[in-house]
Formats: sequence, C-alpha cells, structure tokens
Amino acid sequence: MNMVELIQKKKEGQSLLPAEWEFFIQGVTDDSIPDYQTSAMLMAIYFQGMTRQETFSFTNAMLASGDIVDLSALPGIKVDKHSTGGVGDKTSLVVGPLAATCGITVAKMSGRGLGFTGGTVDKLESIPGFRVQLSEQEFIEAVRTSGMGIIGQTGDIAPADKKLYAIRDVTATVDNISLIAASIMSKKLASGSEAIVLDVKCGSGAFMKTEQNAGELAALMVDIGNDAGKKTIALVTDMSQPLGCAVGNSLEVIEACRTLQGRGPADLQELCLMLAGYMIFAGGASATPEEGCSMAERVLKSGAAFQTMKQFVQAQGGDVRALEDFSRLKQARFSAPCIAEQSGFVASIEADRIGLASLHLGAGRRTKDDIIDASAGLLLKKKTGDTVEKGDVLAVLYADDRDKLQQGIPEAAGAFSISSNRPEPRPLIHRVLI
Amino acid sequence: MNMVELIQKKKEGQSLLPAEWEFFIQGVTDDSIPDYQTSAMLMAIYFQGMTRQETFSFTNAMLASGDIVDLSALPGIKVDKHSTGGVGDKTSLVVGPLAATCGITVAKMSGRGLGFTGGTVDKLESIPGFRVQLSEQEFIEAVRTSGMGIIGQTGDIAPADKKLYAIRDVTATVDNISLIAASIMSKKLASGSEAIVLDVKCGSGAFMKTEQNAGELAALMVDIGNDAGKKTIALVTDMSQPLGCAVGNSLEVIEACRTLQGRGPADLQELCLMLAGYMIFAGGASATPEEGCSMAERVLKSGAAFQTMKQFVQAQGGDVRALEDFSRLKQARFSAPCIAEQSGFVASIEADRIGLASLHLGAGRRTKDDIIDASAGLLLKKKTGDTVEKGDVLAVLYADDRDKLQQGIPEAAGAFSISSNRPEPRPLIHRVLI
Repeated sequence: MNMVELIQKKKEGQSLLPAEWEFFIQGVTDDSIPDYQTSAMLMAIYFQGMTRQETFSFTNAMLASGDIVDLSALPGIKVDKHSTGGVGDKTSLVVGPLAATCGITVAKMSGRGLGFTGGTVDKLESIPGFRVQLSEQEFIEAVRTSGMGIIGQTGDIAPADKKLYAIRDVTATVDNISLIAASIMSKKLASGSEAIVLDVKCGSGAFMKTEQNAGELAALMVDIGNDAGKKTIALVTDMSQPLGCAVGNSLEVIEACRTLQGRGPADLQELCLMLAGYMIFAGGASATPEEGCSMAERVLKSGAAFQTMKQFVQAQGGDVRALEDFSRLKQARFSAPCIAEQSGFVASIEADRIGLASLHLGAGRRTKDDIIDASAGLLLKKKTGDTVEKGDVLAVLYADDRDKLQQGIPEAAGAFSISSNRPEPRPLIHRVLI
Repeated sequence: MNMVELIQKKKEGQSLLPAEWEFFIQGVTDDSIPDYQTSAMLMAIYFQGMTRQETFSFTNAMLASGDIVDLSALPGIKVDKHSTGGVGDKTSLVVGPLAATCGITVAKMSGRGLGFTGGTVDKLESIPGFRVQLSEQEFIEAVRTSGMGIIGQTGDIAPADKKLYAIRDVTATVDNISLIAASIMSKKLASGSEAIVLDVKCGSGAFMKTEQNAGELAALMVDIGNDAGKKTIALVTDMSQPLGCAVGNSLEVIEACRTLQGRGPADLQELCLMLAGYMIFAGGASATPEEGCSMAERVLKSGAAFQTMKQFVQAQGGDVRALEDFSRLKQARFSAPCIAEQSGFVASIEADRIGLASLHLGAGRRTKDDIIDASAGLLLKKKTGDTVEKGDVLAVLYADDRDKLQQGIPEAAGAFSISSNRPEPRPLIHRVLI
C-alpha cells in the first residue's frame, strides 16, 4: 500500500477500505508514515469526511494500536461513563457512587485535564491521601470493596490516538466529527467495560457549540459502540452555562459530596440521576432507564450512595473525613466576590469565559507540565434565570495569589449577561440516543 | 503570526493577506514551519483554492525567497518562453533562434527533465562539447554573440518552490491550479526577462488533460505575470499526440535542426512560428503577433535562423558540424520498427504512452540520479489522421539495449489507435491569452 495513493483517494472523496485504515493507523503508530503525510490525510478527512463504516474501521485500528484493559477479574457488569467535557462537570464523582450502589460495577480510567480545570483524577487528588495510581491488584481490590474505582490512565491505550491528536492540535484538524468520535471511542472501547453511557455536551463551554453538532457526534459514537458489540447510550446535555455552581478542583469535590448528601444544585442532581439511571439500565440492573433513575434517586435520598463514595475514597487511600469536614481540604488564601453592576435577570453565563477565569485563577493547566492549585476556582451564586439586584454577589472567586484574584473578577463578571427580561428556560437534557 | 491560525483561516475558506503568505513562505524557506503544518496548509489550499490576489502574493513570496537573475548587462528586450511540458516538445531549440534572429534577446535558464525525456539542457548536451554550465561572464558573452543562450539552473531560484514541490509530491497536493501557477511563475519572474510567452499544453501527454483546465491555468499565469509588471502571453496548445515526430534527446536536436532548415514536421513548424511570433511581438520587435509570425517565417526560410542556431551552439562550445552531419551525434546501437497490425486511419497516438515507451528505452530519468541515453527514443512515422496499411511502419525505436527495444515495441504500438474512420482534425493551437 502507498500512502500518497491513500491520501489521493480520500482527497477525491472515495471511501477507504478497513485494511487501508489499518495501514494508515499502523504507520502512524510505528512512525513509518511521516507526519506531513499524516497531516495531509487528516486535512483531506476534514474536507471529505468518513462514512460510518470508515469511522468504525478507523476507530478499530486505533483501538488495536495499544493495550486493551481486562476487567474480567471483577464481578458484575462493568459500565463506563464518558463526558465530552465542560465547565463544572463533576458528574463522574456523583454518578459513580449512584450506579455502584445500584449494583453496577464502575471501574474507570480517567485522564488529567488540560484547560479550564483539572480532569476527574485531578479533582480526586484534592482529597488528602487519595491515590490515583494503583497497581492492577490494588485497583481490583478497591473496586471489589466499594463497587467502584477511578484511576489515572495506565498502560498504552490507543497510542495512535495520542500521536494523531498531537498532530491535529497543530494543524487545525481537530474539529471533524469522525476524528472526534474515533478518538473518544477508541479509548472507551479499550476500557474493558461492557456498556458505555456518553454525556455529549453542547453550548458555549463545550467543544460542540450547537445541539445539532453534538447530536451528530452522539449518534456517530452510539453507532460505533453498538457496531463494536457494546451497549452504548448517549445523552446530549446543556453546557451553555457551567454545570452546578462550583468550578475548580476541591470546590467540585465539595459540591459532589453535597449532591450525594441531597444538598446539591438542582441541575447537577438532575443530570447525575439521569446519567446514573441510564448506566443502571445499560448494565441490566433495571428494566427501563426510568426505573434506573428511580433507583438512583432512592440511594441518593437514603444516603447509601454517599456511603459508597466514602468507601471508594477510603479504598483508594483518601481521608474520608474530608468528605464531610471540608476544612480538611486545601483552602485558598484569598477570596473575593464578583458584584452585579445592574439589576435584572441573569440572561446567560458563558461557560467558556467562566472556565477561562478558573484557569487563570490556577484551577487548570495551560500546558501539561503546569501544576494545578486544588483550592482555586469559583462558586457561582447566581445561575441563568435568577433575579439579580445591583450589588448582589454573582460569584465568589478563590486563589492563592491576590493578583490572579483581581484579574479574575472582571473575567468572571464578563461571563454574566444581565437583562431586563427573564430568559426562556433552556432544557438540561436535549436528547437521548439509545 | 501563528501557523495554526493561518491553516484554520484557509480551511474555513477565508483569503489570507499578503503578509500572511509571506510568513508562510518565509517559514517554509527557513524551516521554521514544520512540514506537517505545510502539508496541512497545502491540502487546505487544494480544497479552498486561492483568489487571484492570494496566488499573486504567494508567487511573489516564493520569488522573493531566493535569487533574482540580473540580465541588465545584456542589450535588447529579453523575452522568456516556458512550456508546461509534453512529449516531443523541442520548441525551445527552434523558437530561440527564430526570435533571436528577429532582434529579441533570449537568455534562458532551463531545467533538467524528470520523466519521459530529458529537459532542454539534456537535449542540448547530446551535441558534442555543448556546455550548459557557464559562468555569468561566459553566458553574457555567448548571448551577445548569437542573441541567445540556454544554460542550466544557476543560483538559488525560488528555493521555497523546491521545498513545497517536494512536499506536494508526496502528499497528493500537486494538482491545484494556484499552486501550479505560482510554482511556474515564481521561477519565470525570477528569470530576469521583461516579457514571457507561455506554452500551456493540454491533452494525454500534458499535466492538464483538458482544454478547459489548461485554459484556466494559462489565464491565471497571464494574470500573475501582468500583475508583476511583465508582459505575459499564453498559448494553449495540443498535446494529445506527441509534437513533431522525434521523441528522445539527440533525435529531437536533429528534428529541431531540420525544422530550422525548412524540413521539419508541419505541426512543429506551425507551433514554433506562432510562439516565436508572440515572443517577437511581446519584445516589441513587431507591431502585431501576426507580423511577428511573418518575420519568423522569413528568417526560417532564409536560413538566417539556422545560422543563429549554429552561432549559439558554437558560443556554448558545441560541435557545430553535428547540426548538419547528424552522424556526429551519438548513434543508438539498435533500432527496430513498430508495425501496424491493421489498416485504416491513425485515430490517436496517446502522447503519455509514447513518453513512457521513450523513458523505458533510456531517453528519460525515473529518478534524478538516472543517466540519460542521448541516442535513445523513437521516431513516429505516422501521425494522427494519416492512413495506414497493415504492415506499415508506425514508428522506429532506438536503444542501446536489445531487451529494452523489444519491450518498447508493444508499448509504442499500444499508443496507436487505428480506426476505419478518419478522425476529426484537432486544432494545434486552442487559445491565445494576451
């Protein structure tokens, strides 16, 4: 096979055969295809797209380029959950305990974050003592104890995806639905779970800005997952404003705990119950998603899910007391409010601008070697649709550095639009693809 | 400026500013832009195209990336001629003497060939003693003597084009009209001539297969040339069959001499007179192209142009006797005829297949280190529209190797289509863009 001919074929809008995608991905993995041919192919894919069959072949080839996690030593049906990412998205910390308490095995590998805030493992590391690096044996023991476990990426999962992503990032070829779907699904299919629930975000704080684009991505990933023989469900959910009120690492752990204690923000609780319901259904522990939701609601209200959270944190070495006594989490040295300059209704809170403010406060990484400040971030005191009086606190910002704090205030304020009209309520869950 | 943003901009179909193209071409030249970004940009250009203004900026930036030839020491108006290349195209060897005899200064730099046959300098080197490498002083002296000179590429002309071409070649991004036009024109504008006549070929033996594509390329190059302040004229001419009858290096030198002696094939003579006429007009030595043509015809018939050819060859060290006594040129050890297997009319002679046969006989280079056999090639005994009887000789093949000769016979025969109907005559000159 000849790479120039494959580029030419895609450039002309033809479909490549599975063996041709294997050749390409294999060549990317072993460096036998030079980067300049890879990027030319990626740009041709951007313009000509890939069929469903091609996207599936491409995903499979990336999956086959590395290790596949073996969870067979664990009891029960393993269900994975994945979010395409947003601002204030701490659902994994809530959904995991809810689903695990209802009999689902949740054994998750999670990445570190690059951008607005840390990823799930960064958030968990804000709990004193919590270990995200466990040996395989330790991980299996931890999951057996509490029904769930979350660790950092181990092994060499889809190395072709890592290489391709590095090239896409510097050649303006990130925003293609097939490449995005293949990137996510190659890693999810390697995760060892039998079923997958995808939370595809749309709105200003998400990669997909419109519901339509998010819906297309969701449909494609559901197709790939099902074609690969894994039950796959996707929810298209709102990310036009941050999810919940907390943005930042320890701030989000606190909000997750409050939610499991029945004291969380309404939107976060609603989404978590829904996601958990679909996980319970996908894992066969309920006959319908609605029944799964009701089960999740019961274990939330009874406190059983919070018990699971404590067992999970303890099993991975974390200080359980910190889940109730939040003063045991690292505290920011400085805080300051962001004040409303006019009265009215909160018409919108641009999630990406809030995310950027939290990054600048120290909650996220600009480059992968940056060190996250676990205590940095912000708490929204108003959400879209709330009434506001001039002088009200819109948000409270936290940082270890006074200059960062001062810079963050106008950034956060700029994310809020205040209007004299009450905005139309926006649904939290736009679509479910099952 | 940021290369990822420039790729993104082009990917979205926006036009880049002159300074942005300069940044790109400068980065390609000094290797500060990695090849994978260059190839992504090239593929984005393939899909989104460039405006006339962008193509001009791109060309100018490539022109500025290297040396610009200074011909100011030479008297008269310098006119350059460029052909996009075809099979049996020895026009430079005829047109140069015609135009120079009519008062135009022809100081040409020419490339070596890769592919079917050698380039103009390879052909000239089949004349014993002919030197294509001259010092600047020697070159100026030679042109002063005969009114014309042809040397190999010197200096560092448009190095960005060399680098871009090497990447385009291996990333399936050669076939874009703006990139082709910019590549040709950046080198032509650096050649030091005041006017340029372009011979844009179309048909099976040319890069542009259709008259429409060739016409678009021609129009774009004329625009670029005129925008750059050089009088530029393009002829779109036929390359559906080889030009003239000779294909090969010394065979083409012989045919060029015969043409200057008034004994050349009709199509070659017609095209050469036309091209020379436009060069004479472009250089201001005639009031109209038609008058230029008539002047060229007169100096051909009078033998004055052949005298110029001899002066030119002598000035560059070549054995002038070889231009009349062709036995002084290297002779092939073996020759063999290609015989018609049926009677009828020659419906077509696929130029690319004849070119490939000549390459296999030894007349061309497959890679740039191959050595050309000056005597190898073939002579067509029939051209499109001729009547053929079964058993007639269609072509005679020449090679130094019997095996190559035997392989060449069916290849050459395969290029001929014999039909019972006389084909419609095809015009030699499709269009003139002035």
